[in-house]
Amino acid sequence: MGKKTDTRQRMIEQADTLFRRHGYLNTALLQVVEESGASRGSIYFHFPGGKEELGVEVMGRVHQTLVDTVDEAAKAGDGDPGEVVLGMAREFGETLRDTGYQSGCPIVPVAIEAVPASEPLRKACADVFGAWERQVALHFESAGLGAEEAHRYARLAVCALEGGLVLARTQQSLEPLDQVALDVAEQVRKAVLAQAA
Amino acid sequence: MGKKTDTRQRMIEQADTLFRRHGYLNTALLQVVEESGASRGSIYFHFPGGKEELGVEVMGRVHQTLVDTVDEAAKAGDGDPGEVVLGMAREFGETLRDTGYQSGCPIVPVAIEAVPASEPLRKACADVFGAWERQVALHFESAGLGAEEAHRYARLAVCALEGGLVLARTQQSLEPLDQVALDVAEQVRKAVLAQAA
Repeated sequence: MGKKTDTRQRMIEQADTLFRRHGYLNTALLQVVEESGASRGSIYFHFPGGKEELGVEVMGRVHQTLVDTVDEAAKAGDGDPGEVVLGMAREFGETLRDTGYQSGCPIVPVAIEAVPASEPLRKACADVFGAWERQVALHFESAGLGAEEAHRYARLAVCALEGGLVLARTQQSLEPLDQVALDVAEQVRKAVLAQAA
Repeated sequence: MGKKTDTRQRMIEQADTLFRRHGYLNTALLQVVEESGASRGSIYFHFPGGKEELGVEVMGRVHQTLVDTVDEAAKAGDGDPGEVVLGMAREFGETLRDTGYQSGCPIVPVAIEAVPASEPLRKACADVFGAWERQVALHFESAGLGAEEAHRYARLAVCALEGGLVLARTQQSLEPLDQVALDVAEQVRKAVLAQAA
């Protein structure tokens, strides 16, 4: 990567980290610039649309990271659809614990503020939720569920993990996240078994 | 209520409304004062601990509102544990739709920011999540579930509704909220039937 791409990428990564901890509105652009070692002038050079454009780019990064997390969990689970859910929960849980419960879901702190703050950012967050669901549903389908059922369980998994992450962060314990992940994993396994029977 | 109590109460209600839309950090104390028709000096008269104290009081109000919502849903459901979940989803959904998808869960926008912003506020949010879960579990137990199972389903219901609310707000559609509520309601009903069998 050239120097220009490097700096831009570092700013996106740094913004991702800061948004997860402090939200979109409470992260100052100057902080992103400083902590990524960029120069003050570079923000509008790399992101002519300012913070909103940076926010949309961060959601693009989150999109890719989430799809990778889902795929890695599915691969490690070797065909067990429950492991898709449990693997995601473990990955989220590790980050949460390693950051002293400060870094939870990468979408929620931005999504919550995007309504009513920014329509392009709201759309970007909605797209990430949609892509996350579709990727989970894909693996549930591979495990044997019909398309509609796969999408229902994928949505339940995403919503339960989202809620579990918020509770875990607030209660400073991984227990709520781990428990809902176990519950949903168990349900998906049962649904697959029922389909095969 | 006397004038003093009136003003204090109005400020708590106004802060609740503003926190739900804009979060805790992004709501200015001055805005709370102005929109509740109080005088500038009144904030530190009523809340010597400032915004943090106001935040904790708002969570006290949310606590009571949530417990009431759960009890009303249970009462309307007349013994059907699924209706506890569906009734909550309807109540949340109405508020979300009536506010143009700006007013979602009353805890999440504060809870997300309370870590790392304020330890007393984090505790207050954790308490509300706990009380909400216990109240749901109480009705699941009344419907026939054992204590442990009732708590597991209550936690799943709370997490799924939380996630459903965030997705609904972001996607500007009640569909994710309604769907996860239906799924969890169905599961709780099945669990109660299995218990009775």
